[in-house]
Amino acid sequence: MTGKKKSAQASIEAMHRVFTVPEAPESTLSRIDQNISRNLAGFLQEHIVAVERDLSEVEKDFSDYAIPEKPIFVSEQAQFLLEKLVANSVHTASPSFIGHMTSALPYFMLPLSKIMIALNQNLVKTETSKAFTPMERQVLGMIHRLVYEQDGAFYRKWMHDPRHALGAMCSGGTVANLTALWVARNNAFPAEGSFRGIHQEGLFRALRYYGCEGAAILVSRRGHYSLRKAADVLGLGREFLVPVDTDDDNKIQTDALREKCIELHRQKIRVIAICGIAGTTETGNVDPLDAMADIAREFGAHFHVDAAWGGPTLFSRTHRHLMRGIEKADSVTFDAHKQLYVPMGAGLVVFRDPSLASAVEHHAQYIIRKGSRDLGSTTLEGSRPGMSMLIQSGLKILAREGYEILIDQGIDKARTFAEMIDNEQDFELVTQPELNILTYRFCPKNVQDALARATADQSEKINTCLNRITKFIQKTQRERGKAFVSRTRLEPARHDHFPCIVFRVVLANPLTTREILADILAEQRELATEPEIQDEISILHQMAASPQ
Amino acid sequence: MTGKKKSAQASIEAMHRVFTVPEAPESTLSRIDQNISRNLAGFLQEHIVAVERDLSEVEKDFSDYAIPEKPIFVSEQAQFLLEKLVANSVHTASPSFIGHMTSALPYFMLPLSKIMIALNQNLVKTETSKAFTPMERQVLGMIHRLVYEQDGAFYRKWMHDPRHALGAMCSGGTVANLTALWVARNNAFPAEGSFRGIHQEGLFRALRYYGCEGAAILVSRRGHYSLRKAADVLGLGREFLVPVDTDDDNKIQTDALREKCIELHRQKIRVIAICGIAGTTETGNVDPLDAMADIAREFGAHFHVDAAWGGPTLFSRTHRHLMRGIEKADSVTFDAHKQLYVPMGAGLVVFRDPSLASAVEHHAQYIIRKGSRDLGSTTLEGSRPGMSMLIQSGLKILAREGYEILIDQGIDKARTFAEMIDNEQDFELVTQPELNILTYRFCPKNVQDALARATADQSEKINTCLNRITKFIQKTQRERGKAFVSRTRLEPARHDHFPCIVFRVVLANPLTTREILADILAEQRELATEPEIQDEISILHQMAASPQ
Repeated sequence: MTGKKKSAQASIEAMHRVFTVPEAPESTLSRIDQNISRNLAGFLQEHIVAVERDLSEVEKDFSDYAIPEKPIFVSEQAQFLLEKLVANSVHTASPSFIGHMTSALPYFMLPLSKIMIALNQNLVKTETSKAFTPMERQVLGMIHRLVYEQDGAFYRKWMHDPRHALGAMCSGGTVANLTALWVARNNAFPAEGSFRGIHQEGLFRALRYYGCEGAAILVSRRGHYSLRKAADVLGLGREFLVPVDTDDDNKIQTDALREKCIELHRQKIRVIAICGIAGTTETGNVDPLDAMADIAREFGAHFHVDAAWGGPTLFSRTHRHLMRGIEKADSVTFDAHKQLYVPMGAGLVVFRDPSLASAVEHHAQYIIRKGSRDLGSTTLEGSRPGMSMLIQSGLKILAREGYEILIDQGIDKARTFAEMIDNEQDFELVTQPELNILTYRFCPKNVQDALARATADQSEKINTCLNRITKFIQKTQRERGKAFVSRTRLEPARHDHFPCIVFRVVLANPLTTREILADILAEQRELATEPEIQDEISILHQMAASPQ
Repeated sequence: MTGKKKSAQASIEAMHRVFTVPEAPESTLSRIDQNISRNLAGFLQEHIVAVERDLSEVEKDFSDYAIPEKPIFVSEQAQFLLEKLVANSVHTASPSFIGHMTSALPYFMLPLSKIMIALNQNLVKTETSKAFTPMERQVLGMIHRLVYEQDGAFYRKWMHDPRHALGAMCSGGTVANLTALWVARNNAFPAEGSFRGIHQEGLFRALRYYGCEGAAILVSRRGHYSLRKAADVLGLGREFLVPVDTDDDNKIQTDALREKCIELHRQKIRVIAICGIAGTTETGNVDPLDAMADIAREFGAHFHVDAAWGGPTLFSRTHRHLMRGIEKADSVTFDAHKQLYVPMGAGLVVFRDPSLASAVEHHAQYIIRKGSRDLGSTTLEGSRPGMSMLIQSGLKILAREGYEILIDQGIDKARTFAEMIDNEQDFELVTQPELNILTYRFCPKNVQDALARATADQSEKINTCLNRITKFIQKTQRERGKAFVSRTRLEPARHDHFPCIVFRVVLANPLTTREILADILAEQRELATEPEIQDEISILHQMAASPQ
């Protein structure tokens, strides 16, 4: 062999090896692997750098835009990932990171995920998933029953029926909401007479045939942004995601909802769906689902409930009453990577009526043929991993009782934290927790008093100042890396609906303790004394002292 | 404490343990974990049962529809999964399973996936992903450069620009195609004069404002079914996914494409996108992208290329010429879980023009605020896992050279297999491999000869009979579990466009050898002698003997 041929042969053999020879037990990657198995918390603690590096600094480690010509060793890449990626990632499992909806995971999820990835099934069809298909149908059935409580005969008939699906697994709540509204839209404009249905002829001809000027989705102002995105994708237009006012508890005003429906009807705009929220993203409130279901029925609209966050509240005997009316929904979104404690990338939607999903059914010759059990015929996505295996395992290993404990503890903890905030001089609780989410902000007692007697103009100035301080505290706390709360903007009635920046706290990590919560408040109080923000603080106190 | 309180306390502690105490090294789950690390191939071989159980049998193991009340042990669930799920899953990594697009994975993907899952980042925003965001932007940049070959200045300017994205990561090719066509649709009907844009006002008012009677997407008859699904979701209607005829090589006829464009224009139907295919799902052919790009420009349509399968052909110096013209595409879909050898659930789309994705940009107060680097502002999905870490690792560890070897070997192997089929008495090669996909069917030489001189009527009868036999062989081979080829239906010109059922073979697994291919053909020949199919075989030979 010539030198060139030899080297080509060596490359081919090297390529063969990466598919056949496992990492040696003493290799960098194997050591990381074992480390994670033995002590995940320790691994994350040790490798994630707490203090935040500026993103523009981090970007320098990811500035190559050319795919490398020559292979590098696995150990080299493993070392790179540890130092540059893992070190600068977010410690989502940390009990003091209570600003987002991602929490610590049960330990068993990790080795189970490894099995899932090793099997590398594709759920689009049974030919590439076999038992994973009935398993996924079972998961959909179980969540369906959690929501709709149908009897045994119902599930024996429908759960594994090849021509029906009780729901659709998705990569997350956004696709789940989109799927539900796609179904709603298609069912609103079915085939009739000379019209072959919106799925065939499209929205333009559908509206023309049915004599409508538009098609709208109604949701409270606290609806998740994925709904507006869905209105865009589905061709309705973002303006046709019609926001309805909420009351002081961030729940939709049902009177306003009815009025909007009537008004749209008058404008010949068809209400294709009304969305209830079971756990708003920002404040964790639950809409009056029961009353909304009645209004949806009155106007012949699909009733969808976005329970991406709050769905698992159904596990709790104490709190499930909050979800009353969810069983009247035509479709319900659940996020498994939130309060089912499954790794990122798992959501689902369930349909009350097993025939509902047929509005979006599709087939092809080489895949999901008619009459097959293939789940791909009613999912928006095509190829999908076997995430439902992790959901099924959670539902069996934690069981209803386990999830109940997690839900109850989270809500209890949120109430405790709310009391702690109420008892603090420097903070104002903005929204009481209904589930395990609350918001508050920096606002010393004297400023609160001043706001109570301030004119609209003064109030606006004080709130603007408070906004800057709250934002500073949130940002700096995140950068310091010991704790993390998120922030959002609310328009509280008590502040004349002025947009107020607030801290937002999500208490879903079972490892978050009362002490951790106290430390977070203490650090925030401390941050308000930082030199950088003292000018604002002075102005604030001046305004509070002379409110006239 | 009372007994009830004690048991409640015990449950709470047990729940706490699953979040804090790793599986013991000698537990069932840890043993599986170690097994997979040490010898994945052995694990799969040992645990997946080759002979197929009927799905209705498998369903019995997944018939519970109630979420269990009481927790079970992790070991019990691990045992259940091994016996009931793993045993009855599909051996997608097997070198003799050459019927689908899922192959063996490089070994390092497994421990890397574990790191990804342990970190549990959410790519929707930097607050929950930090370094993962620049890393994902780098991956999008690298694939962008692979396709579009812009210079360094371009990537230095755009790759990490907070207000732009060079593409969007997705859960798979279906969402990638949908995202591209969503962008195309929104850019086709922008804000103008009194019209606030289709994203705001929707398709109905857009068509009315622009004086159109519809909006269409054109693709060859071999286009992936996800495009029809996208036409439905986007509100265009499935009928507005207009199929264009292909030539004998399953490539779009560019004359027919131009004519269709003219015809639609005459009907006031706006062509919003023309889709080229780089690797058709069924036959692996590549459309004449260069010529299609010109036609798209002529009609002012967005040019999208679905390179979910064939994209990585760009790594091969020998074969990349097949993709000529892809660099003229406005958007290109890539599937990472196909020929980038990443686990299931990773696709992406890249946009030539960095400002293109702004047509679908969205923001919210609590997330992806304006000016942030958050990737969630232009993705269809919301919460997403850090799959791009696996893509980046593949691109660095295998590098261009490694992927080139995989691509070249796959195409070589497909050519070898085509020759083997051609030399067989009992089989007919239906489509020559252009990439690493080919189709063939059971059709003995004498029947081939008979078909060559048969009348249309005779030919139809013979082909119908061949269809039944080919289908029987494919199904039975799958059930026996030693090997798997898939099947589809093609309308070959040489058979007067009669729908013929064919075996479909995808040669992407580097571990598939010539011997394995010979064995597959031998088993198929053997299956044609099974008693169950002998009536069909006799009829076939009778028809072939008396073609008059």
